Amino acid sequence: MGKLSSPSKTRKSNNANPLVCSIMARKSSLVKQTLIGSALFVIAIYAFFNTFLSPFADSSDTALRHDYSLRVDDSFAGKSRVKVYMYDLPKTFTYGIIEHHAMARGSLDAPVDDVSTLRYPGHQHMGEWYFFADLLRPESERVGSPVVKVTDPEDADLFYVPVFSSLSLIVNTGRAEGSSLVKGYSDEDMQDALVEWLESQQSWKRNGGWDHVIIAGDPNALYRVIDKVKNAVLLVSDFGRLRPDQSSLVKDIIMPYAHRINTYTGDLGVKNRKTLLFFMGNRYRKEGGKIRDLLFKVLEKEEGVTIKHGTQSRENRRAASHGMHTSKFCLNPAGDTPSACRLFDSIVSLCVPVIVSDDIELPFEDVIDYKKIALFVETSDALKPGYLVKKLRSVTPEKILELQKELREVNRYFEFGDPNGTVKEIWRQIAQKLPNIKLMINRDKRIVKRQLSEPDCSCLCTNKTGIISSL
Amino acid sequence: MGKLSSPSKTRKSNNANPLVCSIMARKSSLVKQTLIGSALFVIAIYAFFNTFLSPFADSSDTALRHDYSLRVDDSFAGKSRVKVYMYDLPKTFTYGIIEHHAMARGSLDAPVDDVSTLRYPGHQHMGEWYFFADLLRPESERVGSPVVKVTDPEDADLFYVPVFSSLSLIVNTGRAEGSSLVKGYSDEDMQDALVEWLESQQSWKRNGGWDHVIIAGDPNALYRVIDKVKNAVLLVSDFGRLRPDQSSLVKDIIMPYAHRINTYTGDLGVKNRKTLLFFMGNRYRKEGGKIRDLLFKVLEKEEGVTIKHGTQSRENRRAASHGMHTSKFCLNPAGDTPSACRLFDSIVSLCVPVIVSDDIELPFEDVIDYKKIALFVETSDALKPGYLVKKLRSVTPEKILELQKELREVNRYFEFGDPNGTVKEIWRQIAQKLPNIKLMINRDKRIVKRQLSEPDCSCLCTNKTGIISSL
Repeated sequence: MGKLSSPSKTRKSNNANPLVCSIMARKSSLVKQTLIGSALFVIAIYAFFNTFLSPFADSSDTALRHDYSLRVDDSFAGKSRVKVYMYDLPKTFTYGIIEHHAMARGSLDAPVDDVSTLRYPGHQHMGEWYFFADLLRPESERVGSPVVKVTDPEDADLFYVPVFSSLSLIVNTGRAEGSSLVKGYSDEDMQDALVEWLESQQSWKRNGGWDHVIIAGDPNALYRVIDKVKNAVLLVSDFGRLRPDQSSLVKDIIMPYAHRINTYTGDLGVKNRKTLLFFMGNRYRKEGGKIRDLLFKVLEKEEGVTIKHGTQSRENRRAASHGMHTSKFCLNPAGDTPSACRLFDSIVSLCVPVIVSDDIELPFEDVIDYKKIALFVETSDALKPGYLVKKLRSVTPEKILELQKELREVNRYFEFGDPNGTVKEIWRQIAQKLPNIKLMINRDKRIVKRQLSEPDCSCLCTNKTGIISSL
Repeated sequence: MGKLSSPSKTRKSNNANPLVCSIMARKSSLVKQTLIGSALFVIAIYAFFNTFLSPFADSSDTALRHDYSLRVDDSFAGKSRVKVYMYDLPKTFTYGIIEHHAMARGSLDAPVDDVSTLRYPGHQHMGEWYFFADLLRPESERVGSPVVKVTDPEDADLFYVPVFSSLSLIVNTGRAEGSSLVKGYSDEDMQDALVEWLESQQSWKRNGGWDHVIIAGDPNALYRVIDKVKNAVLLVSDFGRLRPDQSSLVKDIIMPYAHRINTYTGDLGVKNRKTLLFFMGNRYRKEGGKIRDLLFKVLEKEEGVTIKHGTQSRENRRAASHGMHTSKFCLNPAGDTPSACRLFDSIVSLCVPVIVSDDIELPFEDVIDYKKIALFVETSDALKPGYLVKKLRSVTPEKILELQKELREVNRYFEFGDPNGTVKEIWRQIAQKLPNIKLMINRDKRIVKRQLSEPDCSCLCTNKTGIISSL
């Protein structure tokens, strides 16, 4: 990544795929430099225009305008796009974090004058960069987006808080406590300061945060302040560290990780995929990830299976990339939390994911039927000797081809850099939450004091807790 | 209602407003005859066209088409409307119920040959008739609707089940058990038969009912089979008889009652509204409705307050209508369940609702800010001697005018007969639930067997349980 090195491993993070997700960064550095270069150009243009636009101003209680006739026609005729205002956050919450990250790694000696020269380092939760960059683009470049950027908070339906919460978590990663490089940065202080800043904003106070969108990709991002921002739409990787009253499929968005393996662009089919099942990564994880060691024991002697404990090395990185591009199936066990970056590496590698993570939640499941691109295996089944390989060997090449076709079809959903990709699709999902957001805002205003024996929640519940998945 | 009399009182129903909601029906019979006449004309046209259209056929597993590019553009550009298929239900679940209702009242001696000559009787839960009639209309008359009717279930996003579940509940109302008129009809049998019929449909089995819409306006409608149909979007009046895992704001729709008082079309202002606060209805209700008797005691001697126990009589009906049209405020206490028809009578009367029902849920709260059209008073406050009248007397005529203006602004939301009214707005809300419906369908398909200590639910929770409402 040029001057700035990519983070090697997240500190407290559930980096379920340290080998592939973090280290592969350098392989695609050329592509990324181009992308980031473009983004910086966009920022420069934005800065120019912004000079003539009104800065953020406090606003009175008018967030919900009541032009009933307009509102209704809009909502289904799609005549108007959802309006998003991006806060002009103090640099402490954006570029300042990049700066600290670079300084902690010694690639930067001191703060720079022009923060826009700083490059966001590649890592698996770099989605936060792409959202920021998207809203910095002029509207003329955002034509296909489901949301339109507004420069006056009074016009906004939703407020985006572009904090680099995941990068903040790994600023000090790998640095010894008390090292001079670490001094001067605390993720926890950043979190506290962010909440203090937000709570001073009129737009936040007006609707209790319901109409805010906050990105927290790393399962540990913003962990200290989640309770204070939980009304907002949170962009998360999973609910592994979150209670049901803090985050849910209904209120929030499951984001994909930024894949760290290059997209496979070769032919479909199994001709060049001799390995049946591939896995490389950390054998030892906490909590749900304990299954990994058990899977190693069951699988490591099976023919056609490549399952390796990965440590960080150039050789292993090459092996992981090669492995995913030349295997029929890729094993996706849970990490410390149910999700892991590897799933998205598998998808763009067209290596059919075999998901062994009973509590996983998946991005874009409103439009993607994951049964058409992946296999789901119950943990207890996957641990039966011989079960998994027998199951996989029974899948015909025709079926694999069918799965690969669907995988290629959905690839764009997992490309943060594609204008028709992840960011656009997540905005679509956020925009679709607006009716519930407005409902909660109006409802909160008129609710009277009550004695309740349990939390006041509206839920979608599945009855399918006893279903056994099969091919 | 011509040959067919309107139901005087629901049997097990929480008819919180027997006096006004049910009895006022006859006052507007002329209007209704015209409306129903038009609807029948539409049905005739539909029957003609329908002859050339394919009947319902079982369908294969293709409900969720996976043209990803189309789907995404559609969803936010609003290029396509949500597609709804209305089941051609056996007449047992529609006209047959009207027939039984008429026979139980002696206005019909025997089943008729041509059921389309039967008129749906007016009552507070007659919304089910308007949804049925809406989907019977040819598309050329449905241009402004957020949903488009399809005649092939294969094309449908959603399936509407046009059962007259609320009318079924009151077929035998007021008839003595064992009376010859009652013989031959059982609401419970109807419910069981409906579920049996539904469960035999491919479209139902395919997605576990998630993509179905079922109307159950009366809080007791379908009570016997709710657990079997709870995946569907339920159109309900409140959640008084439903558990949180059966129904919620997120999954379902809160429908207004069909108002039974004529819409007030006179001038705004307080000039002709000398009464401060008006209530007429049943003083004695069960459960949450016990508050009514207590409110009577606190209010009946206050100056400017008209609060009367209503029994059914021509004189009282006239008084209720006159009272709502000539009072500044209308009291809306809970009935057996939190909602009551009276709220909608108040709204169309431009009589500012004073809501004393702590657990009430309100229709269209995503677009209507009820603080702008109503006052919310905590039950415990409302029971303090002098509290309510003092509060109401302090409201200036200017403030009342402002509330009345907003009331008139939202009136159309509560007019089932208005093409730009209730039915259209509920379809809009249903259409907006489609992303979550599709999410639940896809998710159910791939969920594996798990050991869960509590139900698998995704929720929206409010933290505002200690807020005291004020003007």
